[in-house]
Amino acid sequence: MSGPSTHARLLRLLRDRGPQSRAELGDLVELSRTRIGAELDRLTELGLIEEAGLAESRGGRRPAVVRINSGLRFAGVNVGATSVDVAVTDGELHVLEHIAEEIDVREGPDHVLGRVTYLIGKLRDQGHLPQLHGLGIGLPGPVSFRDGVPYAPPIMPGWDQFPVRDNLTRELGCPVLVDNDVNVMALGEQHVGVARTSEDFLFVKIGTGVGCGIVVNGEVYRGANGSAGDIGHIQVEEDGPACGCGNLGCLEALFSGAALARAALAVASSGESPFLAVRLQERGILAATDVADALAAGDPVAGRLVREGGRRVGLVLAGLVSFFNPDLIVIGGGVARIGHVLLAEIRSAVYRRSLPLATNNLPLVVSELGETSGVIGAARMISDLVYR
Amino acid sequence: MSGPSTHARLLRLLRDRGPQSRAELGDLVELSRTRIGAELDRLTELGLIEEAGLAESRGGRRPAVVRINSGLRFAGVNVGATSVDVAVTDGELHVLEHIAEEIDVREGPDHVLGRVTYLIGKLRDQGHLPQLHGLGIGLPGPVSFRDGVPYAPPIMPGWDQFPVRDNLTRELGCPVLVDNDVNVMALGEQHVGVARTSEDFLFVKIGTGVGCGIVVNGEVYRGANGSAGDIGHIQVEEDGPACGCGNLGCLEALFSGAALARAALAVASSGESPFLAVRLQERGILAATDVADALAAGDPVAGRLVREGGRRVGLVLAGLVSFFNPDLIVIGGGVARIGHVLLAEIRSAVYRRSLPLATNNLPLVVSELGETSGVIGAARMISDLVYR
Repeated sequence: MSGPSTHARLLRLLRDRGPQSRAELGDLVELSRTRIGAELDRLTELGLIEEAGLAESRGGRRPAVVRINSGLRFAGVNVGATSVDVAVTDGELHVLEHIAEEIDVREGPDHVLGRVTYLIGKLRDQGHLPQLHGLGIGLPGPVSFRDGVPYAPPIMPGWDQFPVRDNLTRELGCPVLVDNDVNVMALGEQHVGVARTSEDFLFVKIGTGVGCGIVVNGEVYRGANGSAGDIGHIQVEEDGPACGCGNLGCLEALFSGAALARAALAVASSGESPFLAVRLQERGILAATDVADALAAGDPVAGRLVREGGRRVGLVLAGLVSFFNPDLIVIGGGVARIGHVLLAEIRSAVYRRSLPLATNNLPLVVSELGETSGVIGAARMISDLVYR
Repeated sequence: MSGPSTHARLLRLLRDRGPQSRAELGDLVELSRTRIGAELDRLTELGLIEEAGLAESRGGRRPAVVRINSGLRFAGVNVGATSVDVAVTDGELHVLEHIAEEIDVREGPDHVLGRVTYLIGKLRDQGHLPQLHGLGIGLPGPVSFRDGVPYAPPIMPGWDQFPVRDNLTRELGCPVLVDNDVNVMALGEQHVGVARTSEDFLFVKIGTGVGCGIVVNGEVYRGANGSAGDIGHIQVEEDGPACGCGNLGCLEALFSGAALARAALAVASSGESPFLAVRLQERGILAATDVADALAAGDPVAGRLVREGGRRVGLVLAGLVSFFNPDLIVIGGGVARIGHVLLAEIRSAVYRRSLPLATNNLPLVVSELGETSGVIGAARMISDLVYR
């Protein structure tokens, strides 16, 4: 029922706005000079903030400036189906280092989390992590945020209910939070991306699968069991193709990185798309990126696949716009890099199918952050816990 | 960023839990005895609370009990397409009087709001409203909550952007809030209905049209422009029948009170349903209630209409369950009175089409409050403003 504590408000202001004078902070949180002094002394004792010299005078004595302790370090980790990204940030969430390597999430949690702790160790050996104050990690599947475990994740065999949070906490000796990748990406967009001024927005990831991060009143909304945003399994065609979840005609069975790769293989094999037929012959395999290349080369069949997919995504989003009335929709994930043709089709379906009151001034844009959104969002997530 | 004020927390506790001792209140809001005393003195001066004798001793002196001032009165009004309900409550939201009359919302705001002020005047003349401390009103269409005006409401010609809040405030001399009917009904379900312990739930009204009230973290969620929950215009059939909104295949064009009445007319005229053909001959007109009667009489065609409708509502709700992961869905509105056959079909579609994590322990129930939810919710809405 109550909002964040005074500690949390002060720390988050310093994280998001940088160094502030005591007087400025007092104005921002509406506390007396005495009270603010006591709170800041306590945060200094805790090692969370430090003095940072004197500000310009506002008339009279030059006020003391405080900032987040410059020795604080967070790690933001984003695990994808085929890669892991690890970033180190300072306490204001500036990225100091960012490394990535290819992995196969299907190799299971021991292997993948082993690579995460190895990369953290490497960053520590290189001197980037004198201390680690917390780690946030995003996973490509449903996660019980409360318990810190994946929950029956379709593309992550061996991860079901694996104690990711507790294992990493024990291994690294710092606070750890786990969430699904779309939620941390939504947080990243809110922190440094296009959603900086948004209160109620959707981050739609079109990657191997399709998922959605939901932000309500500036906070990630996870729903009753933490499964909110699982839009890849909304039905778009009653007798559509079978989906991995066991149902027919799910959005991600019809359009996603995986679905686009399957469609590419079909039109290459049938010869409908000469471009993709040649590409298949050259490489023996096709991915969603090949459809993007075919589209760029003017291949009409690739254009049709992308437009059909965009229309389907758009119809699902139109329904969600009617229901949720967001102030912004951000499209991200690998398939979003197809760009204009896809975005135009999604926009067209959303604007045609939603009511005017909901789409007046509704921007629908592609993420500009790419991979960075996940690691910054993961660092932001754990910083919210440390700055509580 | 901050939660409700201490005043608001104290007043809402007294509203929702009834009389409390000063010590109990101090425990509930975690304030010192001195601070709580000062706050309660201030609320007494404002005329919002009063002394209510002494409680049982917890050892030592018997503590003083306070309660919401027993002279406080709120009015809760719910305007439907064809009726208006007005209730008077005390400050704890107990309904003291409830009157209703038939109206036609299409007669416009001057006429309908004139009836509302007439009914309020009548309740005042009867001695039920020594004072009026605030009025909440729900309208059957989109409302800009911030501005207190309807916004292009499809079934309310003449109401578009009419200053409902400001007119009633001037007329009655008390605070007034306006919202759409599904939002106030959701609040009513939360206050005294099945949603009392829910944090994130949906109230789906199937009446003349179809709409949805959304509660997130215990608060009504209205979206960026106040149009959240407008699910009646989600597309369920690409080439379905034309809807009043100008699109094809909207949910409420396929299933709603109005759609059911049209379907009843068709199967009566064609002779497919002998029951409805007789009813049409007797009355010259058919409504959704006639389909309910036909169903109760074992008419198979009526059964088909209800099951098809339930399946369509269920498919839309399945998508919303995947997206929103609510902890409860309450079905209300006139058509919900059809009961079991409809509910079974909705449940079947939702449970079949949503993922297990989202539907584990998801109750899907029919409202038990009926008309009462709207008036209590409207009173609750204005009490939240007065108790702020």
